[in-house]
Amino acid sequence: MNKIEHIGIAVRDLKAAGNLYEQLLNTQIYKIEEVASEGIKTAFLQTGPNKIELLEALSTDSPIAKFIDKKGEGIHHIAFEVADIQAEMARLKSQGFILLSDEPRPGADNKLVCFVHPKSAGGVLVELVQERIVIGE
Amino acid sequence: MNKIEHIGIAVRDLKAAGNLYEQLLNTQIYKIEEVASEGIKTAFLQTGPNKIELLEALSTDSPIAKFIDKKGEGIHHIAFEVADIQAEMARLKSQGFILLSDEPRPGADNKLVCFVHPKSAGGVLVELVQERIVIGE
Repeated sequence: MNKIEHIGIAVRDLKAAGNLYEQLLNTQIYKIEEVASEGIKTAFLQTGPNKIELLEALSTDSPIAKFIDKKGEGIHHIAFEVADIQAEMARLKSQGFILLSDEPRPGADNKLVCFVHPKSAGGVLVELVQERIVIGE
Repeated sequence: MNKIEHIGIAVRDLKAAGNLYEQLLNTQIYKIEEVASEGIKTAFLQTGPNKIELLEALSTDSPIAKFIDKKGEGIHHIAFEVADIQAEMARLKSQGFILLSDEPRPGADNKLVCFVHPKSAGGVLVELVQERIVIGE
């Protein structure tokens, strides 16, 4: 794993939380993006080589809404950058980690992503992310 | 803030969790350290410019034991590296963030640290860390 690509933080109100994290980190949000397939709206802040991703639910049945109902606002997942997501998925699977999808899926911020089930990773929701290479865009 | 210095993860059993995170991150623990003042034993893994700090309680009244009782094993805090911890503490205080100490304290891994109360930081326990410069050691 190359680095912590980002930390995902579940928030009730992206605008209010955005203001708070801009103050906390002393930097500006550089991107806001909806990921309709995941039922979320995201805002990104940069801190050196790492990002903070704020996650607001777009509907009450979004996993983020359910997370906040159960645990309140707070850290939702850690994403690690990998060079070859399919190789990492195969490696983790062979070691008994439970993956939430058989194939990488398109995620926010132009990434291919895959989640590792928290019950196989010490209670932590772990995301693998690989930069997508899009030819001709 | 320069980067995410580390993510702190509360674990019941440092040895078992250490094995799990070594597999997950495909790397070895490079340091185990007790921080008696905080009632914890820690293990560190490196992933690029960032670290994962596993935290085991040394006694049942340690904040880590209380965290696990309440929320289970999982992500406990995010630590951001800062160049000047006292300047960052003053900046955050002036913006209404609640700090858990008036002065920086010695932390694990040869750092000066200060925590920001999660109730002022969107439910996230945030740690500021600055490398300690020890002359003559």
